[in-house]
This record gives sequence, C-alpha cells and structure tokens, in this order.
Amino acid sequence: MKTLNIILVGFGNVGRSFLRLCQEKMEFCRNRYRLDLRVQAIFELGGALFASQPLKTNEILKKYSSPSSLPESPDWKADMALTDIFHSVKPGVLVLCTASSLRDGEPGLAYIRQALDRGWNVAAADKAPLVLDFRNLKEKATQNRLTLKCSAAAAAALPTLDISLYSLAGSEIKSIEGILNGTTNYILTRMREGIDYEQALREARSKGIAEPDPSYDVNGWDTASKILIIVNSVLDTNFSLKDVKVEGITRIPSCLLDQGKEKGRALKLLGRIYRQAEKLRLEVSLNLIDSSHPLYGVDGTEKGITYLTDTMGSLTVKGGKSDPKGAAAALLKDIINIYWA
Amino acid sequence: MKTLNIILVGFGNVGRSFLRLCQEKMEFCRNRYRLDLRVQAIFELGGALFASQPLKTNEILKKYSSPSSLPESPDWKADMALTDIFHSVKPGVLVLCTASSLRDGEPGLAYIRQALDRGWNVAAADKAPLVLDFRNLKEKATQNRLTLKCSAAAAAALPTLDISLYSLAGSEIKSIEGILNGTTNYILTRMREGIDYEQALREARSKGIAEPDPSYDVNGWDTASKILIIVNSVLDTNFSLKDVKVEGITRIPSCLLDQGKEKGRALKLLGRIYRQAEKLRLEVSLNLIDSSHPLYGVDGTEKGITYLTDTMGSLTVKGGKSDPKGAAAALLKDIINIYWA
Repeated sequence: MKTLNIILVGFGNVGRSFLRLCQEKMEFCRNRYRLDLRVQAIFELGGALFASQPLKTNEILKKYSSPSSLPESPDWKADMALTDIFHSVKPGVLVLCTASSLRDGEPGLAYIRQALDRGWNVAAADKAPLVLDFRNLKEKATQNRLTLKCSAAAAAALPTLDISLYSLAGSEIKSIEGILNGTTNYILTRMREGIDYEQALREARSKGIAEPDPSYDVNGWDTASKILIIVNSVLDTNFSLKDVKVEGITRIPSCLLDQGKEKGRALKLLGRIYRQAEKLRLEVSLNLIDSSHPLYGVDGTEKGITYLTDTMGSLTVKGGKSDPKGAAAALLKDIINIYWA
Repeated sequence: MKTLNIILVGFGNVGRSFLRLCQEKMEFCRNRYRLDLRVQAIFELGGALFASQPLKTNEILKKYSSPSSLPESPDWKADMALTDIFHSVKPGVLVLCTASSLRDGEPGLAYIRQALDRGWNVAAADKAPLVLDFRNLKEKATQNRLTLKCSAAAAAALPTLDISLYSLAGSEIKSIEGILNGTTNYILTRMREGIDYEQALREARSKGIAEPDPSYDVNGWDTASKILIIVNSVLDTNFSLKDVKVEGITRIPSCLLDQGKEKGRALKLLGRIYRQAEKLRLEVSLNLIDSSHPLYGVDGTEKGITYLTDTMGSLTVKGGKSDPKGAAAALLKDIINIYWA
C-alpha cells in the first residue's frame, strides 16, 4: 500500500466534485491500486483547511458547500500559504482546480511552479496555466523527475491526451480534429433542429450547460485552449494562443446554417491540428461534415476526437462525462496513472 | 538511451510486419522514446535466425518472405531452442507472433512461460495462450516483476485494453460491448446492402479479409476470444471460453436480416460483457442496434468498443488499422509502454 498525500487547490465545482470522488473511491483505490489517498489540505484564496491529520473529507463535504464557507471550519488557517503546506507534508500530488486567467495564467501558474519546485507531482484541471506556459512547466517537471498531468484540462473524461501518448505510442500523428466543447456543440445541435442561436443559448444556460458568461465557449477560445494543450503535450511543440486561427459560432452565415440542416450533414465547431506545406496548422473553425465523417453523430453536449496516424490508421473516441464529475474522474485517473501505471 | 533486445517468435504475416515496422521506426523510437530497438533473434519452428550481432532486419526482409525460407540464411541455427537464445542475450522483450491452437494454446503458451521464467517481458499477438491461461501468465509476470502485454491480441490497433486500464483508471466498468471482428462485420455490412451470406463471404475471401477457413471468425469464436482476454485483463477475472455464450453469423433468421435492413437500424455481431443479477455475463450475439447506439455506423472491416462506467459515463472508440500492420503497430506500442510510460 502506497500512502498518497494530496493537496487540493480550489474548492469550486470541480474541486468539490474531486473531494467527493476521493471519498467515494477511497476503498476502491486501496483495493484495486494499492493507493491510500489522503487529502491533507484544501487551499483557497485567503488560507487553507489544514490539520495535523488527513482531512475528514466526509465532514467537509457535509458542512461546506463553497470556498467562502471554508473559514467557518475550526481547521481553517487564515493566510496560510501554499509553501507552508509543502513544508508540513511529505510530497504527493497537487490537484489544481482553480480557474485562472488567460491573461497571465494566475493564480494557477504560480501554484504549479511552486509544487514542481518542492517535489510535488501535479494533476491540473485549470487550463490557463497550461495554455500559457506548458513547455516550461513540462520541462520543470522532467528536470525534477516529477509528472505533470492535465487530462482534466483537455476535455476531461474524453481521453484526448491518453490516446495520443499511450494508445498511439510509436505512431506518428498526422492530424487531429475534435469536437471539444459541449456548450457550442449543444447550441449547434439545437440550431440544426430549428431554433435560433439566441434561443439555443438561453436553453443551454437554463440547463446549466452554458456559463453565465458564455463568450469563452461560443467564441471558440475554450476549444482553442484545449487544442493548444493537446498539440503542445502530444507533438512536443511550443505554440501559443496567437498561433491558433479561431472562429466562433456567434455569426454563422445563414447559407452555412441551411446546408448544415440538410440530411446527412451537420455543422460542427472543430478544433483542428493538421499539416499544410510541412507546417503544423492550428485552427478552430465551423465545418460542414457529412455522415461518413467519424465525428458525425457526436451531438448535444457530447465530445469526440479523431486521430489520423501513419501506422494505426484513423482512431476516433467519443463520449466521456462532460461535467465537474467527469473532470474529477479525469483528475483521479491522472493521479492513479502517475503512481500505478 | 536504453538498449532493448527483442526476440521475435513467428515469421508469418504479423511477425514480418512487426520486423518491417521495427526497421521503419528505429530512428523514431531512438529520438522520441530514447529506445534503441535491437532484434536479436527470430525464432521459428525448427530453429532460429541468430548471430552474435543484432540481426540486420533490412536484409532479412529483402531476402526472406516466409518461415520456410529462413533456413537459407547463413545465420540460421537449426534446432536452436528458445532457451538457448535466452542464455545468450540480455533480457528484453519477447514478441510473440505465433498462431497457436485454441485446444492447448501451444506452441505460444510454452514460449510465454519460458520467457517470463527467464526475465523477459512479453508482448503477444497470439490469442490462444491468453484465452487459455491468462490468469496464470499474468501472475507469473507479476511475481517476476515483468510485464505481459497483449494489445495486439485484443483487436490490435483498436486500444481495447489501454482504454480500460489506463484511460478509465479509477472508474468501475459496468459493461463493455464491441464490434471486434472485421470479417463478420464486413459480411454483415454487405448483407445489409443486399447480397446474401455466401456471396458476402466469397467477396471477403477474395479481398483477403476472410481467412481461407473462416469458421473461427464467422462462428463467433474470434470475438469470444477477444472478449475473454479483455474481461480477464480488465476486470481481473478468470473466465474461460466455456463461460462465453457464443453465436455466429452463419444462420441468421430471415426476419432478423430484414429488420437489420430497415432505415436507422443495423444487425451487428457484438461481444458483450455485462452484469445480470450481480453476475458477470459474457456473450457474443447478433443484435439489432439503431442509430442512437454508439456503435451504429461502425461498418465494413471497422471495429469499435463502448465502455459504460460509473464516473466517466459512456466512452466509445472506433477505427484502428485492422490488418497485420495494425497488429505490428499494437505490438510496438506495447513495447514502448513497457519501457517508457
């Protein structure tokens, strides 16, 4: 049995889902993977939940339902810094569930750097630090013989990174294209069924699919972020967001919309990585696909990704839970694969 | 750079494809994975190709195109036993490309046992030994701190095992169903298009899709073998072929055939692992699926598999090259993942 210390950073939806999953899967991880998961601290803005013993996740989940309620706990240490926690706990894995800014990647970027400098592996669900500084973070991890995993930031339960790095090992990936954002795919699916953009967006909001501010999704930036994390992880490149040609779904020409309603065709927002004149191209664009396309039928909030390779042909994966629970499951998977695989 | 000694057992279609792939990917594996692949011996019935230096794969591929031509080589050692090779080479990985009997698993079963006893990891494309004795082989590998991988025996380039063991780590798999045999799926697809079984089979034969003796495929045993390898690998069970309820495609009731031709429906031979009354059930059966089924549209020689899990929802993978090259690529992938992941 291996004891595995966990510091959870961020107690939002994904963070709480992760804590709940740890609770539910504790026995399973002991029996199946010989891993004893111990959440030693929950770090949030303003301090940390931390005690001399592993946290009682069950009690925390019952009593506290948001970051702002954590200071009510007797174990809350106001102003405790992340580095203070590193000093007090034997290294394990830092689980990053913050939602950092795409401007500077903070606060998540600093947390990942600190963790890797102090001997902690990292499993991250927060995209921005990876979008902005993946190459350097990966190098820091490698230099320190640590692992940085980020499945949860690259379409969560859809194993976009595992497939490329593990299942396609030894193959050269010629191109990748994916439907990587549930909100836009839901809106496009509903528009194909006949309702207009505004209606579809309202519906997505009322169902909790779209964020209150959906601009990051509908303008294509979420897909662009995922494509960027995938290409830099998988093809060992160092692209940045400005290298991605990005189109959203807010201004679809009506002729395109009409074509997308034809039988056997569909309009999809695809994130694409491909070669043109020997150069890698990255783009997020609206594409009419027909029923022979491997991603045809990936509708609603479902996601999917297709890899074209030299030796394994074309491989498509679709499905995978697309919510905070799915992200939590992706984090747990990464943790298990750091220690067990 | 890690030097990796390889003994190739079996110089049939898959064995030769693997050797060719090693040749093609030598530089790629050095640069990308820091692995220096060295094929030290090719073992076949009656002897082995073996020299004091790693074999010159390029020359071998040019000069010899079947097992029976190998004895023409000056490096051929008649009657050399596999154990003699183990004595002479520092352990690496044994690549098993034999086609053993489903009656007793031989000759492959003995080769795997010998390899694991002598400190060699194993990557196997040969199903029979795994169908008959997976549990014991896996235990032997674990006891000796070795790895037994068998992606190539479980639908080759379709990553049926990787997905379950790696991409779904931490999830409980509730059920699995797959279209796992290209020959039967091709025949069913053609029958749906209007031709009869005999015609479709003839066509599959003439295209090199069906074996000269197609009974193993069309009676469902190939799918049953794969389902068995998958369940015993993934759910750590110890089932045998007699536990699989097996149906083939040779006697399809005409009413079922007619229903399978309706719009939005298709008749598929599915390998299934599911729970009923708390017990795991294994079966290979003809199923009418409709267009909402995740494997709908997996036609011709294509394969696909769907996992239903507790925390990641439903995940479907389809595609992956379905020929000796695909099997060779799956072997290389397993080798890389033994040493690199």
